[in-house]
Amino acid sequence: MTANPATPLETALAYHRAWTSGDFELAMTHVADDIVCQAPAGTLEGAEAFRRFMEPFTKILTSSALIAAFGDEEKAVLMYDTDTIPVRDAPGAECLTVREGRIRHLRIIFDRLPFEVARGRQTPA
Amino acid sequence: MTANPATPLETALAYHRAWTSGDFELAMTHVADDIVCQAPAGTLEGAEAFRRFMEPFTKILTSSALIAAFGDEEKAVLMYDTDTIPVRDAPGAECLTVREGRIRHLRIIFDRLPFEVARGRQTPA
Repeated sequence: MTANPATPLETALAYHRAWTSGDFELAMTHVADDIVCQAPAGTLEGAEAFRRFMEPFTKILTSSALIAAFGDEEKAVLMYDTDTIPVRDAPGAECLTVREGRIRHLRIIFDRLPFEVARGRQTPA
Repeated sequence: MTANPATPLETALAYHRAWTSGDFELAMTHVADDIVCQAPAGTLEGAEAFRRFMEPFTKILTSSALIAAFGDEEKAVLMYDTDTIPVRDAPGAECLTVREGRIRHLRIIFDRLPFEVARGRQTPA
């Protein structure tokens, strides 16, 4: 529809705006079917595995703010802060490789420790 | 000594190269005395607090690789992978605010969970 395809940064920001505003289905339109996601707990392959990882996080999100966003011809990097129901001040960073307007690879870094601590509080052994 | 001061990205990369190559004293020459560092465990104020946080990590580092590096007039973002003695595949991301060639603010994101798990293995209760 447009003469100029989106840059990796534009795609990354469109994905980010969608999931942080609660429209995860719109976010998934920017994700390739064969996405590979390197997450703290391991590597996820394919859009459905990615959805099962990421969608639950979007349900506990209460606010977010972009800290930095950069990109080149192949990839983009986003750093952002989030507040969530179990954990406040839970920042994340992503390096997204984009081809033909779809996110093909996403490496995400965040601190799992406060989420583990919060889970332990909710479900004592 | 040079007509053009270093860009934030150049300063960030010089800092990064120094600590990942084992020269933490050189790394500290890029750090402002009044640096504020937002780390997963909380906010650290001043170069000595920053040193106490970061130097021990450099002692357990066994290898590192830059994943992405970008910057503008004010800040830089680095994402990198590291292997450490207790934890392999321990990536990190930093957003560094640089003024006059010194790092004034550094926000660092990494997953503390595998380090906590490794510590628990070493020192059982």
